[in-house]
Amino acid sequence: MRSSTLISAGIIMAMLSATARADEGMWLFNNPPKKLLHDKYGFDVTPEWLEHVQKSSVRFNSGGSGSFVSADGLVMTNHHVGLGALQKLSSKDKDYVKDGFYARTLDEEYKSVDEELNVLMEIEDVTKQVKAAVKAGLPAEKAFEARRAIIAKIEADSLKKTGLRSNVITLYQGGQYHLYRFKRYTDVRLVFAPEQQIAFFGGDADNFAYPRYDLDVCFFRVYENGKPAKIEHYLKWSKSGVKDEELVFVSGHPGKTDRLSTVAELEYLRDTGFPYLLQRLNRWEVMASVYSGQGVEQERQAKDFLFSVANSRKARMGGLEGLQDPAMMAKKKAEEKALRAAVAKDAELSDVADAWDIIAKIQKIRGENIRKYIVLEGGAGFNSSLFGYARTLVRAADEFAKPNEKRLEEFGDADKKSLELKLFSKRPLYREYELAKLNDSLSWLVEQLGYQHKLVQQILAGKSPRERAGELIGSKLFDVKERKRLYEGGKEAVAESKDPMILLARLVDKEARAIRKVMENEVEEPKKQAYDTIARAKFAALGTNTYPDATFTLRLAFGQVKGYTEGGKHIPFETTFAGLYRKAAEQKNKPPFDLPPRWIERKNKLNLKTPFNFVCTADIIGGNSGSPVINRDAEVVGLIFDGNIQSLVWDFAYTDEVARAVSVCSNAIPEALRAIYDAEDLATEVVSGRRQ
Amino acid sequence: MRSSTLISAGIIMAMLSATARADEGMWLFNNPPKKLLHDKYGFDVTPEWLEHVQKSSVRFNSGGSGSFVSADGLVMTNHHVGLGALQKLSSKDKDYVKDGFYARTLDEEYKSVDEELNVLMEIEDVTKQVKAAVKAGLPAEKAFEARRAIIAKIEADSLKKTGLRSNVITLYQGGQYHLYRFKRYTDVRLVFAPEQQIAFFGGDADNFAYPRYDLDVCFFRVYENGKPAKIEHYLKWSKSGVKDEELVFVSGHPGKTDRLSTVAELEYLRDTGFPYLLQRLNRWEVMASVYSGQGVEQERQAKDFLFSVANSRKARMGGLEGLQDPAMMAKKKAEEKALRAAVAKDAELSDVADAWDIIAKIQKIRGENIRKYIVLEGGAGFNSSLFGYARTLVRAADEFAKPNEKRLEEFGDADKKSLELKLFSKRPLYREYELAKLNDSLSWLVEQLGYQHKLVQQILAGKSPRERAGELIGSKLFDVKERKRLYEGGKEAVAESKDPMILLARLVDKEARAIRKVMENEVEEPKKQAYDTIARAKFAALGTNTYPDATFTLRLAFGQVKGYTEGGKHIPFETTFAGLYRKAAEQKNKPPFDLPPRWIERKNKLNLKTPFNFVCTADIIGGNSGSPVINRDAEVVGLIFDGNIQSLVWDFAYTDEVARAVSVCSNAIPEALRAIYDAEDLATEVVSGRRQ
Repeated sequence: MRSSTLISAGIIMAMLSATARADEGMWLFNNPPKKLLHDKYGFDVTPEWLEHVQKSSVRFNSGGSGSFVSADGLVMTNHHVGLGALQKLSSKDKDYVKDGFYARTLDEEYKSVDEELNVLMEIEDVTKQVKAAVKAGLPAEKAFEARRAIIAKIEADSLKKTGLRSNVITLYQGGQYHLYRFKRYTDVRLVFAPEQQIAFFGGDADNFAYPRYDLDVCFFRVYENGKPAKIEHYLKWSKSGVKDEELVFVSGHPGKTDRLSTVAELEYLRDTGFPYLLQRLNRWEVMASVYSGQGVEQERQAKDFLFSVANSRKARMGGLEGLQDPAMMAKKKAEEKALRAAVAKDAELSDVADAWDIIAKIQKIRGENIRKYIVLEGGAGFNSSLFGYARTLVRAADEFAKPNEKRLEEFGDADKKSLELKLFSKRPLYREYELAKLNDSLSWLVEQLGYQHKLVQQILAGKSPRERAGELIGSKLFDVKERKRLYEGGKEAVAESKDPMILLARLVDKEARAIRKVMENEVEEPKKQAYDTIARAKFAALGTNTYPDATFTLRLAFGQVKGYTEGGKHIPFETTFAGLYRKAAEQKNKPPFDLPPRWIERKNKLNLKTPFNFVCTADIIGGNSGSPVINRDAEVVGLIFDGNIQSLVWDFAYTDEVARAVSVCSNAIPEALRAIYDAEDLATEVVSGRRQ
Repeated sequence: MRSSTLISAGIIMAMLSATARADEGMWLFNNPPKKLLHDKYGFDVTPEWLEHVQKSSVRFNSGGSGSFVSADGLVMTNHHVGLGALQKLSSKDKDYVKDGFYARTLDEEYKSVDEELNVLMEIEDVTKQVKAAVKAGLPAEKAFEARRAIIAKIEADSLKKTGLRSNVITLYQGGQYHLYRFKRYTDVRLVFAPEQQIAFFGGDADNFAYPRYDLDVCFFRVYENGKPAKIEHYLKWSKSGVKDEELVFVSGHPGKTDRLSTVAELEYLRDTGFPYLLQRLNRWEVMASVYSGQGVEQERQAKDFLFSVANSRKARMGGLEGLQDPAMMAKKKAEEKALRAAVAKDAELSDVADAWDIIAKIQKIRGENIRKYIVLEGGAGFNSSLFGYARTLVRAADEFAKPNEKRLEEFGDADKKSLELKLFSKRPLYREYELAKLNDSLSWLVEQLGYQHKLVQQILAGKSPRERAGELIGSKLFDVKERKRLYEGGKEAVAESKDPMILLARLVDKEARAIRKVMENEVEEPKKQAYDTIARAKFAALGTNTYPDATFTLRLAFGQVKGYTEGGKHIPFETTFAGLYRKAAEQKNKPPFDLPPRWIERKNKLNLKTPFNFVCTADIIGGNSGSPVINRDAEVVGLIFDGNIQSLVWDFAYTDEVARAVSVCSNAIPEALRAIYDAEDLATEVVSGRRQ
């Protein structure tokens, strides 16, 4: 703490460093909360413990977390994280989402079509290199290019040197840059999934609710050279499960939080960002529900999209509720005021003083451009996987012709293999479903940019959105071979293609890139610079014993297993299988509270006293789904799958009065595997850490 | 036709008077398409025929149509028109929406809580009186007041003179004013309704679809002095049903069309009006679906709201599709251009020339004010029945203290009884459901007006939308007695009330009234004046043998029973019960294609060859639901319940290539009543026109 800022720093300490007392934080593995854990829980985190947990943790690039739980490559995650993979393996004749899946032998393990798992092997702080390359005083466009170039170079050099997927992660919104090296697994096979009915018992109604009764688990196995991968670091299974008030850890990949955002940025999210996103989510939810309502097969096709849209909608509604809560905002304002006052008194921080005003001005530019950006560059105006492929092909032809440092980020050498995995995915595509999505989004595009907009007129080509969507869906990009041909053919092949979706992607590319440049140069870059200075001010006031906002990279959270009180009623920390059957009966076994037939038939085989779900105070957010919950001995005691409704405000600020992370109890998993699914071998592998 | 506009009038005739050939038109009963029917179908419509059909037709003020089908007051309408009444009679213990209802005796007929039926008795053209009262050159505000005053006076005088509900209807968007006198029925008892499952078989997926298999019918009986009303004019039942290509008529209450709207107004609807409404509908649909998903009882509570929102959403999506179709708009532009050219050449129409530009300018003002108008005056920011009651009570206290001519339209003496019927309705209200709606809409209000908006801050009173909604829902207006007390207590009682919802309604009243005034004076009034002149130009060019846009008043449509071709496939004009069972089997009897148990058990009692649904070319729109379809002899051959998806563009322009109205076949009704419901007495009353 600096002497010149004694008084206000006192306030800041009181306000910002709640971390000193609460179970707050999504901590970096190279900056863990050692002192806090020692002081509050008497737990001394060792480098060996950290390395073991880090390397036992798995990122699902499709958007979730997981962990190794056996030496033979077995990976545990949530059913809803594996949902995309399950959907892609299913067909009209076999619906693994609905019916579940269990491979009794290795031969039966079913290879997913485009799943990529990453394990974090090394972290290197490259902040100095990145900042040195971006000279002070550069115009924003040049600064952005210089930053992109140095990051691309660091990544490519690291990939060449180590063979590991290498990504530079921006932390503290621009305050630090760390290079993360990942081991990639792309031979990922499905081992077990229960019926979605029990994984997501209670459906949207119970999503983000507690008490809860969900077996939200599935297992994959990673392979290398056609054989189960041999895994050094995997998590052992706890024999006893969780106890009330026990200290637990969550090692996973929180996706995105906005805790360090300035008040102006939060106001942008409250007034523009969240409402605009929710409009789109509501529209998509209705569109996908309508499509689903047409029949059993349509319902199956749209299931993962509908789940993910409804899930985001509920999460964002909860977030917006926080943003519209004057109490939450008042706290944020007071914190900001105190920090600004501290900065104003510190001569060494004089360059920080304007940062908040700069960020406020940027929000205006952001608000003015967000619609066009989302529609054209975000691709929301062309909601079809085919457009995604077309865009990738059109841009790949341009970008791969450039040197690595000059390319758009997603075409950097570091991510090329991941890009190809997605582009050549054999996932099934359904013509009618793609048509429904595209038709709806083209109509939305007209609404967003205005019917008279020149590009809109070119996109529609004199037709109604429905007619035009019908024409575009005639694309040959349904066929992986055609995508390969165009990709390998490069610029020439793409230029010659008469495929309607390729022509569309080419048509919009100029304007899409232009609006992206506006956002990069006028929003992203100056924001990074401003947050960089704010981060420095915070470190000066509070020290570096803190954590950055979530970035979908590995973080360590911790907390206590603990119930809470809501509306005067105590909610106990855990539920049991018995509670599940009670809830289903109360709801007359009607969807979404219906039990799968197997669970009805085999009720008497289950130990109904088995703990099923529990809550704890560990600090998580979307992306943490599938994270292992472990005890002091790094043994699995649970599996994160949700937060309660009160935790949705964690996007902006951590509180632990009633907000909780929700997990499946470790005990429930082998019990259900044995009693309901006759999956004795898998249950034994899970608890013993070895394949049988 | 005027000689000076020969050429362009020729084009106009070709373009506008498609009425001369197609089965187009929602004709006024005092200006029926006599010549057209004579020339095309050799049918001579007589005054007696018209009077009989008019007085046999019934308007459901809740938003639909119906008809008398027996001398003993039996009224036929759609199940989905009766849905609101069914919902209001249902409870947690008895769900008539789901299970259906049949009163075997008069004693069992179940009195609806707030249904009002109107029968049109007389029409009087009061155009001259209204126009004379609005002096040319008055400022818009004065003109609006003068118009409102003369209409209120005409209505009140008529009510006093005749005792009939009297409403002046604005036709041709301001070109004509007709006084309609209605007989009111408010003792309306439920006689029969099938399960919603069969009335709405196929659910949202099949809504606006064809072929179709819906028994969308229910029966009420009107009472006078506690006894079934004796009805002079009721429709006889056809013994034979419909035949292919037969001429049929539809007598009902189309709600709203935009066919005479200028291109600028259609562009407003395309770019602002429809997208804005759809955003709201999508949001409501998601909110209500989420609430429904919580359990069986919640699903029951939200059922009619969810139906009506999804129905509107699908209709508006179809309408927007038409507006975004360049072919439809090109036709509208060409028509407008031709009419404007004709006007330019006619010295007597010189005052019309600017009308289109005036309307274009008005759309801008409308677009700038629509959000605030919908949120505050439309009440969409306070989506709870309790707010509706509070607003009525607050305004009733103010308005009834003024002379009739000075009041807001809805507080005119002419509608006072209808207002009281609604206000003192004993419909059930559910605290949790009202809370869910109110919470969601308060959050939406914040988003629409902006968090910083002064009134928004006052509305929230320092709380989050959820907290504030919880507080407001503590209102005592759940209780009819409290509503009566405040209504009868007038200004003083309302001023003294500390009820949170009353206080809210008072808080927003000033700004709500102000934005209403903006819309009245700057949009509604100048639009009326401009459309008045355009109407005159159209009458000059095309004669008065035409029809005005729909106004939820009685209209006569006609057309042919006729299949159509879609995607190269012929769709026959009718379906049968056999087709219903086929469709359910194809869809594995899964919702929304599941049959009620009774329909499965009694399949072998049904004559499966009975025609079930059919299509015809008669010109209808929302509001026509429940209209009888009759033959030349004014016998019932069907019951309108929907249009196909291609008919949704009828909002803007009639076409008959593939657009069709969809009806229940008359034959299906007694057949189902007897075979499925053991409703022999009702079936006999229906076909014989006398209660048994």
